[in-house]
Amino acid sequence: MMPPFGLLHRRAWASLFGQLLRPSVLVCIGEVHFHSQVSEAVLISQLKPHQEKSNFVIKTPKGTRDLSPQQMVVREKILDMVIDCFKRHGAKRLDTPAFELKEMLTEKYGEDSGLIYDLKDQGGELLSLRYDLTVPFARYLAMNKVKRMKRYQVGKVWRRESPTIVQGRYREFCQCDFDIAGQFDPMIPDAECLKIMCEVLSGLQLGDFLIKVNDRRILDGILAVCAVPQSKFHAICSSIDKLDKIPWKDVRHEMVAKKGLAPEVADRIGDYVQRHGGVSLVEEMFQDSRLSQNKQALEGLGDLRLLFEYLTLFGIAEKISFDLSLARGLDYYTGVIYEAVLLQTPAQAEECLSVGSVAAGGRYDGLVGVFDPKGHTVPCVGLSIGVERIFAILEERMKTAGLKIRTTETQVFVATPQKNFLHERLKLISELWDAGIKAELLYKNNPKLLTQLHYCEHMGIPLVVIIGEQELKEGVIKLRSVASREEVAIKRENLVAEIQKKLSES
Amino acid sequence: MMPPFGLLHRRAWASLFGQLLRPSVLVCIGEVHFHSQVSEAVLISQLKPHQEKSNFVIKTPKGTRDLSPQQMVVREKILDMVIDCFKRHGAKRLDTPAFELKEMLTEKYGEDSGLIYDLKDQGGELLSLRYDLTVPFARYLAMNKVKRMKRYQVGKVWRRESPTIVQGRYREFCQCDFDIAGQFDPMIPDAECLKIMCEVLSGLQLGDFLIKVNDRRILDGILAVCAVPQSKFHAICSSIDKLDKIPWKDVRHEMVAKKGLAPEVADRIGDYVQRHGGVSLVEEMFQDSRLSQNKQALEGLGDLRLLFEYLTLFGIAEKISFDLSLARGLDYYTGVIYEAVLLQTPAQAEECLSVGSVAAGGRYDGLVGVFDPKGHTVPCVGLSIGVERIFAILEERMKTAGLKIRTTETQVFVATPQKNFLHERLKLISELWDAGIKAELLYKNNPKLLTQLHYCEHMGIPLVVIIGEQELKEGVIKLRSVASREEVAIKRENLVAEIQKKLSES
Repeated sequence: MMPPFGLLHRRAWASLFGQLLRPSVLVCIGEVHFHSQVSEAVLISQLKPHQEKSNFVIKTPKGTRDLSPQQMVVREKILDMVIDCFKRHGAKRLDTPAFELKEMLTEKYGEDSGLIYDLKDQGGELLSLRYDLTVPFARYLAMNKVKRMKRYQVGKVWRRESPTIVQGRYREFCQCDFDIAGQFDPMIPDAECLKIMCEVLSGLQLGDFLIKVNDRRILDGILAVCAVPQSKFHAICSSIDKLDKIPWKDVRHEMVAKKGLAPEVADRIGDYVQRHGGVSLVEEMFQDSRLSQNKQALEGLGDLRLLFEYLTLFGIAEKISFDLSLARGLDYYTGVIYEAVLLQTPAQAEECLSVGSVAAGGRYDGLVGVFDPKGHTVPCVGLSIGVERIFAILEERMKTAGLKIRTTETQVFVATPQKNFLHERLKLISELWDAGIKAELLYKNNPKLLTQLHYCEHMGIPLVVIIGEQELKEGVIKLRSVASREEVAIKRENLVAEIQKKLSES
Repeated sequence: MMPPFGLLHRRAWASLFGQLLRPSVLVCIGEVHFHSQVSEAVLISQLKPHQEKSNFVIKTPKGTRDLSPQQMVVREKILDMVIDCFKRHGAKRLDTPAFELKEMLTEKYGEDSGLIYDLKDQGGELLSLRYDLTVPFARYLAMNKVKRMKRYQVGKVWRRESPTIVQGRYREFCQCDFDIAGQFDPMIPDAECLKIMCEVLSGLQLGDFLIKVNDRRILDGILAVCAVPQSKFHAICSSIDKLDKIPWKDVRHEMVAKKGLAPEVADRIGDYVQRHGGVSLVEEMFQDSRLSQNKQALEGLGDLRLLFEYLTLFGIAEKISFDLSLARGLDYYTGVIYEAVLLQTPAQAEECLSVGSVAAGGRYDGLVGVFDPKGHTVPCVGLSIGVERIFAILEERMKTAGLKIRTTETQVFVATPQKNFLHERLKLISELWDAGIKAELLYKNNPKLLTQLHYCEHMGIPLVVIIGEQELKEGVIKLRSVASREEVAIKRENLVAEIQKKLSES
């Protein structure tokens, strides 16, 4: 019998987790109980008359959902793995409030600023829910004059997007961010960020992945040497960013027809942004007659060359693709940018679980300066793990595989075959709790033995202690293994020690 | 040398934690770095001219704060302990969104409803930030027709109170809730809730504590037999609730002068609500000539008698006080209510760190029915740990004791005494990361050895691996213990195994 998750040490989980993710293997005990998606379960309800209300709907707000215990178990294991990785790289944990002064968030997110949730003006400050964890981090650094910090933060953020729940996109979602702030020698922290993304994605066994890398300065350089007017940089960038979803001819059409670019300019851009490759492409771009004239682009290329050198030492260069179409939406990036994508849709999710990027980040050297009174800045580079999408993939796999998950960690159940034994059961379970043993009983005065044993099987509880008249007289307790149905009588005074021995064996 | 926290197994932490809380003992390594309270550090700032803004203040919203890495370490240890306890009692974890439909929260919090944060109407639903974790739990049960569930939830809640930060009260704060929903035999789940409160408070070693217990039905019975008009029940209850802060004569004055109660009625109430004691007081109230005429009060007293029976079996009866003045503010309680208070102010916090209750809860049998379309209800009982106040107490103690806390868990630092060794350092650290070892290096091409060793001492990193020309030639690495300054040369290929051995020894 596989031990239930809750009893496993974290390391042991790591290997079990691997099994979990291979859909052919059936692990676990207990009941399958995937709640019907809560955000779909909408009930029309009527409050009691005295509340003088008419019909109303019981639901969670649009784009949000409850997370059931089954979902929470999966999430916590994933978050533990991500956080373990962040700690392995020496990060400290930070937390910031769920909302910020509205003015802290304005002019940071470009076109997406309209997606910020504002709080109602109830007298006092104008507030907005945080949109990501990066801007609050930059605000924290500036406010506390911190010049150097390697921090991680895990928390919810909120965006008023049209929810496309199928893709694992919600209006409330969790982000896991790792960032390195400080003035250092070039590309060493940047390379570490890419290493972390590889470690997390490998560790979670999501299948093959690729990290696209580009540099904002190279992109700007391309636009400049292709003679795109500065005023159109932003619009053209967001067209380029669509190349992972739509073909070049459609992107070109958008540039020309919608954004008013001359066709020959668009073609010139197309020659660049359709290219991707390894470090050899970096060298090729260095030789490019037009691009090599652009100072910004040369800086970006130089940094990428150095980055690839370090990535090779980290043994991850083959996971990285220099992709000239990568643009990233957020305004604050200033240098290298990256985005991890899964290379294959999980075979079992046939209705195309398109998850997009599962991790992304980049360098933002100017953001802290925006918050600093004197404009002093702190260079930063970081990454965000798209855990919400990873949850969605793993949940889908588990559902497909019919995997069952224990949602409690109870080790021992306290049972009796006799009536009027509540007092003995309460005394006994109290002893177990005090010894740190995870224990449950039924909240009934006189439950049937069968009901009690059924509860254990149902919940995946491995051990039962049984006490009755006979046992009480003889000063013993029966210890039963739920899986094997073996029972042994042990001395009452040895109970805790015996249970601990049993648990450590399994 | 004490091992740094990060390296300790959770069990070991538990005992170390005890030491931490004894202010006379100086534990830990690394740097003291208690950030000046972030919410106080207000900077007047000016955005860059192109943003066309005038002066603005960099701060977190009123009543909120960032949590520094030092604070996060303490919080996470406390939360781990609380969650461990909840799991020991068989609870599953649930999560709900940060905001709910506004109508879900209305008419649940009595006088305090004005403290709810509303979101701005940006087109769509009217939303409010959650005010506690209880109402969302009841909404979840009703929405999913769950009839039975033992769940815990840990998360932030928001209340627009006048922040009195000194007392550890913020507008954004964390709650840890444990609740048992379902129809069971009386007082068994209720007794378990009190047992959990005792386990958490004992486990955190906060000093002596007492749990006040009362029953809403007894309170209502008292008001009825004292001839308080039904319309004044609520107002008089909230006066009674102040008895832990102000003396009876002031409460009486409020009842008579402000709330229009007849003096003799107030006096009759005073005879009851100034009383507290153990189970013998329950028996005494059973004999009370007036109260014994009231059906509700008798039900409440009967339940308390049974509760004390179970609390005795759990070995915690002496921690419990039947306190007739306990009223609890929230509207939704229907039966037993309780509140834990610390009995002594920590000696070292001399400016009176008045923390009020550190845990509280009660039975709310009607709340789920309010959300159910047909009014079907699910009886519930639960508790909430006031972790925010507990954090405040422990932080205060640690500050007073000058305790230093490690905020990272880094085990090994990769150093070199020589120039141009970045490549070797990167290859080496990558190996360590891949083996799951927590490792750091300086992000510099040519750091000085002294700077590197100083960083280790400063950060409390226990081990350093040193590589140089000589080592590279001989195929060895130097492994240095930061505390003892001992260095041993080990074969490069044994490095990971040797480090793991060292770490498991310490």
